[in-house]
Amino acid sequence: MAVRININADMGEGYGHYRIGNDDEILTLVQSVNVACGLHGGDATVMREVCLKAKENGVSIGAHPGFNDVWGFGRRQIRMSPADLEYLVAYQLGALAGMAAYAGTKVTHVKPHGALNNMAAIDKSYALAIGRAIRTVDSSLYYLALSGSAMETAALELDLPLAREAFIDRLYDDEGNLLTRTDPRAVIKDPVIAAERTVRMVLDGEIISVDGKPLPTRFDSLCVHGDEPTAIAVARAVRTALKEAGVELVTLPEKMRG
Amino acid sequence: MAVRININADMGEGYGHYRIGNDDEILTLVQSVNVACGLHGGDATVMREVCLKAKENGVSIGAHPGFNDVWGFGRRQIRMSPADLEYLVAYQLGALAGMAAYAGTKVTHVKPHGALNNMAAIDKSYALAIGRAIRTVDSSLYYLALSGSAMETAALELDLPLAREAFIDRLYDDEGNLLTRTDPRAVIKDPVIAAERTVRMVLDGEIISVDGKPLPTRFDSLCVHGDEPTAIAVARAVRTALKEAGVELVTLPEKMRG
Amino acid sequence: MAVRININADMGEGYGHYRIGNDDEILTLVQSVNVACGLHGGDATVMREVCLKAKENGVSIGAHPGFNDVWGFGRRQIRMSPADLEYLVAYQLGALAGMAAYAGTKVTHVKPHGALNNMAAIDKSYALAIGRAIRTVDSSLYYLALSGSAMETAALELDLPLAREAFIDRLYDDEGNLLTRTDPRAVIKDPVIAAERTVRMVLDGEIISVDGKPLPTRFDSLCVHGDEPTAIAVARAVRTALKEAGVELVTLPEKMRG
Amino acid sequence: MAVRININADMGEGYGHYRIGNDDEILTLVQSVNVACGLHGGDATVMREVCLKAKENGVSIGAHPGFNDVWGFGRRQIRMSPADLEYLVAYQLGALAGMAAYAGTKVTHVKPHGALNNMAAIDKSYALAIGRAIRTVDSSLYYLALSGSAMETAALELDLPLAREAFIDRLYDDEGNLLTRTDPRAVIKDPVIAAERTVRMVLDGEIISVDGKPLPTRFDSLCVHGDEPTAIAVARAVRTALKEAGVELVTLPEKMRG
Repeated sequence: MAVRININADMGEGYGHYRIGNDDEILTLVQSVNVACGLHGGDATVMREVCLKAKENGVSIGAHPGFNDVWGFGRRQIRMSPADLEYLVAYQLGALAGMAAYAGTKVTHVKPHGALNNMAAIDKSYALAIGRAIRTVDSSLYYLALSGSAMETAALELDLPLAREAFIDRLYDDEGNLLTRTDPRAVIKDPVIAAERTVRMVLDGEIISVDGKPLPTRFDSLCVHGDEPTAIAVARAVRTALKEAGVELVTLPEKMRG
Repeated sequence: MAVRININADMGEGYGHYRIGNDDEILTLVQSVNVACGLHGGDATVMREVCLKAKENGVSIGAHPGFNDVWGFGRRQIRMSPADLEYLVAYQLGALAGMAAYAGTKVTHVKPHGALNNMAAIDKSYALAIGRAIRTVDSSLYYLALSGSAMETAALELDLPLAREAFIDRLYDDEGNLLTRTDPRAVIKDPVIAAERTVRMVLDGEIISVDGKPLPTRFDSLCVHGDEPTAIAVARAVRTALKEAGVELVTLPEKMRG
Repeated sequence: MAVRININADMGEGYGHYRIGNDDEILTLVQSVNVACGLHGGDATVMREVCLKAKENGVSIGAHPGFNDVWGFGRRQIRMSPADLEYLVAYQLGALAGMAAYAGTKVTHVKPHGALNNMAAIDKSYALAIGRAIRTVDSSLYYLALSGSAMETAALELDLPLAREAFIDRLYDDEGNLLTRTDPRAVIKDPVIAAERTVRMVLDGEIISVDGKPLPTRFDSLCVHGDEPTAIAVARAVRTALKEAGVELVTLPEKMRG
Repeated sequence: MAVRININADMGEGYGHYRIGNDDEILTLVQSVNVACGLHGGDATVMREVCLKAKENGVSIGAHPGFNDVWGFGRRQIRMSPADLEYLVAYQLGALAGMAAYAGTKVTHVKPHGALNNMAAIDKSYALAIGRAIRTVDSSLYYLALSGSAMETAALELDLPLAREAFIDRLYDDEGNLLTRTDPRAVIKDPVIAAERTVRMVLDGEIISVDGKPLPTRFDSLCVHGDEPTAIAVARAVRTALKEAGVELVTLPEKMRG
């Protein structure tokens, strides 16, 4: 039986008269999208449209909750109580479920956005807050967590459906941490290298560190970015290489059901 | 069998560090509350708390969607396309459903807030937009509409569950329209008069106009306000008088199921 | 002595990670810009950058206050008390003055944005509210008002410096009103026609109505749009034709000082 | 000649239909107020009213810029680039200057609000950002900085007018740092103790640490809070005791001019 993997990307980050990203391009690359929920981007009108497009393309929908900060696009770290954060996330999960009703479809995963994702990756109180929101609003949702992050730990502790993700365009150190973006090697911009690397990751279930060390890693979904020309070229090459290697690209629920 | 009626009021209109209204007072007066959904007031933390309190008190929960204008508290008229309005309402219905999950309860009605209610009462395009949002997100929700308004017409046209409401502290002219607030007689501030009047309304199914004309009127719920001292005194007197007259006060779903 | 005219356009309408319009293109077309003040678009970072660019290009700066509605981009009509509106405008005038300090320059005119402009053009209470804000914050600012609008009347009544504007790409009826945009003739999209028309307007001081009637009209500034390809082509052609006709293009203060 | 000191408090933190704090009470206690500038609280209508009231009461006005987060009331830490922060502060300084024009008065100092104050007290990049905003918009404004904080250092480095403040209701450790609020001794709630302590601070120019060590400290202004009953009682007692000790209570500019 073919190896299966999921590719996910962010989508629907426009707001009112403003647009950002390239939603149509993204839909040709992925099987799952993370939909902004109105607080850092993605108003109700945009959310509905994205849900309809995802449905048409057979792409599964995840909530992409973020901080309530349109000006900062959810990329500014905000410190709040874990309880307030939990309810802020629950609010967004509910709101997206409402908009998904327009497509007659259901939300199937949750992946935090921007600074919230970065903080929850290392701060367990934030990671748990997101998890409790999921458990309350819809405990069947997959918590899509960076492999090895505090989110993964939180999902396991709360006994939530967990899906792990890994990056296709980032390098890791020997301990399995992402190189910081200030390191010139941190981001892989060469489509050929990214494609080769990713095929190996998927087939072998391990990541090769920047110094050549194999790091056995579990992941169900690969994250791609659609907002930069080089990122799209990388994503495209990875997609093609995976298909040529016989890997089946499936929605996140399909991947998780095995 | 006893005559039954429902009393509803707005609740949960605080926002962050700000509070408004007297939620605890209101809970002693009503059987149904209209919960602000985050866009004109009522953040996620407040919404959750209100849902829990309503549940504890055996009070049914309705969504109280408004314009996205915290500064204006949803009392400023905003002109937008009916489509944008519809999705804005759907968003709020979803969000409240998410927060109601914390109380293990379900939202059972929708009543627009402030300027949106005023506009939808006379502008059918707005009334229909709200109705379509209800139909899409949860078609079992009662559309709580001012008796005789465009909202009532919209609910009937869309074949939605309809609950009609009337005011206990406002006078009507011979055509059944509310006297404008600039008319000194418009608002009934005397608890005794309001109580007598309301009991007659409920028992006879008709409102007596300012000039003494009986106006047969259907209504399932009486709206009270909790944000002013005289309004609370009126609501209290009405409540007591209804009970003494043998009228049973029930949640909106109980009233509608007969 | 050469005939002089000013051309103005909106600028700096981005917000956080969002961009809209083509500010660099606009700066090659105009001598005055209307700068969004943070409430419908244009955050502090964007405002500062626009002021610096305007200064570099010898372009004069005007405030472009709008409704506090980023989601609606200030294009949704909002009903509020004239007093609240006045203070909302004063706030924006002050804020832009703060940001203009970065360019060591001064704001010299005020032109309301979007729905606020549309409403103030016909509603004198709104037009006066804007005028009173100008009078209080800086009574040396030109109130840039559509010729024949309630804003013009308000500026005259309040004895404020008044600059009148006209459109280069819109047709007028015999009474001097703009054709509504639903009329297919309303917008002039042909650069050649717009250029010929505008040169005549500027040299003769009259607009020719859609039915050929000459309408003597006073105007000091021509409004161009930078957000659509055809609008830019029209603006470019108009600019070239005016220069070839010997018309001198000057900043608004230069035009007003004669 | 009498010893002089200034007392300052926050004011004007309402927003739309929401009110918080007790502005009228505060005006009887202080000679300078810190006025919220619209981004964490304090809309344009509120700002104007506060400026008028301050003027009537002979109280000097300071800007109280905060993070753009009404929901969090500016009490949530937000991480942004120092440049973005600087312009956000400059925007607020300009906006308040606009509203102060309604009182025919000028803003004379700047004190950051809430989480921004807390962060700028220890993070020099934030402290400098605020200082650069002051220098650009109005370099005559006093930077009101907690004595010993990074804000004091920043003001000195940027050669800005500096006014130092100290707390009347907080205890310090031997190194001159405030006890954290988790320490039960951190806040002084007894008006008699606070009053005695403050008179000594003002007359001797030194603070006595929690362990009895005298800490020579420069300060020009004492910060009081108006939002809690005990805080108001403390402020009242301090005020009375200072007057009885012959200390003259003056506006911040009066204090600084000597």
